[in-house]
Amino acid sequence: MSENHGWVLESYPVGDDFDAALKLRETPMPEPGPNQMLVRSLYLSLDPANRGWMMMPTYIPQVPLGATMWGFVLGRVEQSNVAGFARGDLVSGFGAWADYCLIGAEMANKVPNLHGLPLYAAQSLFGLSGGTAYVGVLDIAKAKAGEVFVISGAAGSVGTLAGQIAKIQGCTVIGIAGSAEKCRWLVEELGFDHAVDYRKEDVGARLAELCPKGVDIYFDNVGGPLTNAIAMRMALHGRIVLCGSMAKFDNPGPELDLGAILLNRVTMTGFILIDHFDRLDAANAALAAWVAEGRLKHHADIVDGLEHTVTAFRTLFTPGAPHMGKLLVRIDPEAN
Amino acid sequence: MSENHGWVLESYPVGDDFDAALKLRETPMPEPGPNQMLVRSLYLSLDPANRGWMMMPTYIPQVPLGATMWGFVLGRVEQSNVAGFARGDLVSGFGAWADYCLIGAEMANKVPNLHGLPLYAAQSLFGLSGGTAYVGVLDIAKAKAGEVFVISGAAGSVGTLAGQIAKIQGCTVIGIAGSAEKCRWLVEELGFDHAVDYRKEDVGARLAELCPKGVDIYFDNVGGPLTNAIAMRMALHGRIVLCGSMAKFDNPGPELDLGAILLNRVTMTGFILIDHFDRLDAANAALAAWVAEGRLKHHADIVDGLEHTVTAFRTLFTPGAPHMGKLLVRIDPEAN
Repeated sequence: MSENHGWVLESYPVGDDFDAALKLRETPMPEPGPNQMLVRSLYLSLDPANRGWMMMPTYIPQVPLGATMWGFVLGRVEQSNVAGFARGDLVSGFGAWADYCLIGAEMANKVPNLHGLPLYAAQSLFGLSGGTAYVGVLDIAKAKAGEVFVISGAAGSVGTLAGQIAKIQGCTVIGIAGSAEKCRWLVEELGFDHAVDYRKEDVGARLAELCPKGVDIYFDNVGGPLTNAIAMRMALHGRIVLCGSMAKFDNPGPELDLGAILLNRVTMTGFILIDHFDRLDAANAALAAWVAEGRLKHHADIVDGLEHTVTAFRTLFTPGAPHMGKLLVRIDPEAN
Repeated sequence: MSENHGWVLESYPVGDDFDAALKLRETPMPEPGPNQMLVRSLYLSLDPANRGWMMMPTYIPQVPLGATMWGFVLGRVEQSNVAGFARGDLVSGFGAWADYCLIGAEMANKVPNLHGLPLYAAQSLFGLSGGTAYVGVLDIAKAKAGEVFVISGAAGSVGTLAGQIAKIQGCTVIGIAGSAEKCRWLVEELGFDHAVDYRKEDVGARLAELCPKGVDIYFDNVGGPLTNAIAMRMALHGRIVLCGSMAKFDNPGPELDLGAILLNRVTMTGFILIDHFDRLDAANAALAAWVAEGRLKHHADIVDGLEHTVTAFRTLFTPGAPHMGKLLVRIDPEAN
């Protein structure tokens, strides 16, 4: 076992200046306690939620200063104090942005049967992104054939999968993304019916043209002013699935006008996958089947090298950045 | 049949200056068309929704200038072109602020068995107010014993009934109202567990004291900034029933921060009784039984004389006005 390096949170970030807040340091090799395992990181999943964790307590406590930054990690077990996990197992879970990290039993999952897909599919297709898309579309939104399904953050890790799953259910799918290139990709590669570039187009006006009878389901990955623009276009008894709020990082404060929710008798549900881990096996099985049938595509943007983590992370919050699908950092060049 | 008078909408109100907008005029006796009936008004129900109808299209079109102001009326049929309704029947429905008005078949209901209660109970207990309270608490909020139930507009027509119904279900009930007198009345007369005066107290801080584990159900009759203050105090998987938005009349614009909805995985549902008229018979039966058992009180503030309608209406929007329960105008002094 070699030395360890990790991104240490030395100050809380101001705006999106993560370079000032996070520093790559040589760090001690962690010692697994009871119900923990030491994991060699193979891939880091970079997610908008990571930014929220630095800003405030969320569904987990705020990341403390001095900690190696927390994140979802895909890796190989080096040493295990967790029943059911042994040295050499591939695992995904709540770890840290480091060569080696600890993963606790609570949020650890063995990498599922990959059905011949590359290892990174454990993060770009299965696990949290695919689980969130699957549960959000089927269990929370209850998407049905013939409904109009609008999704923001459509080119992101959850958005690409959720939009395609809604399409598989028979919905008319409209993606909202931040560049012409992403919009083209959503329609031409992923089979979305329409895509709207929120940076260039008036989203409300475009929806009025594309779905004059209103939006049945809005799968909201971003929050912020866009939520209100789309809420104003909901159909009677429409549903909004609140799944992410990354636009809030730069637009704090109240954003939703309740008038449209009341008048159209809309139901809005806040949704985080941690309440639905019992659905992960079903999600993984369905996702694998859809990929095998050629009905679902997954895509990862893979950045090589732990040292590029923070630069890559920042692109999640750069409107129009070219990143599409799941953003991963490959730590171990041997990982496939 | 005598002459007719009604409140004509001659201009759209600016703020709450209804005196400038609505004028009491001698108006023609209306002629019922197909599926309409001519009704002698006995009581007018004054509701915050009436103000919204003047401001914009809602679930009904905006009231046109020159129309006699629309409102919910309890009256006696003079002449009927509606199957099942005959001269002399007592009816409640969508009519106008006038001595005589037309009520169409769609939103007309025969006055239910009053179980010996005075006629005005058809509006203060049964019908729209009681139906909204019953469906909102039981079907939408699904209130259960042991839950913390917070309600705004608590001293109003829906609020008084909904709070008591939640109490009957076994909830801890906290009412939000706009004067010390109303708060005292809610606790001492209606049996609410607590009441908070939103004009004098910091509602968020008081809720932190009264229910440190959070709010399971918020029954929102007002919208506006109060909604956000209470949304921040929701318990995990809490529910918000959006039933009214009168505070928006003076506070337009976005009011809700979606962060709290997402983090606590809250479900918010916009609710208007017009989708649930099939539940009115069940509601009326339950309300009558609870009154007979001494478990539910209803209260009407009754103003005599059509000419006082607009002055009374304005008190709905005057914070701290003494009005409590249902606000009615008695048009016919013979009505009991």
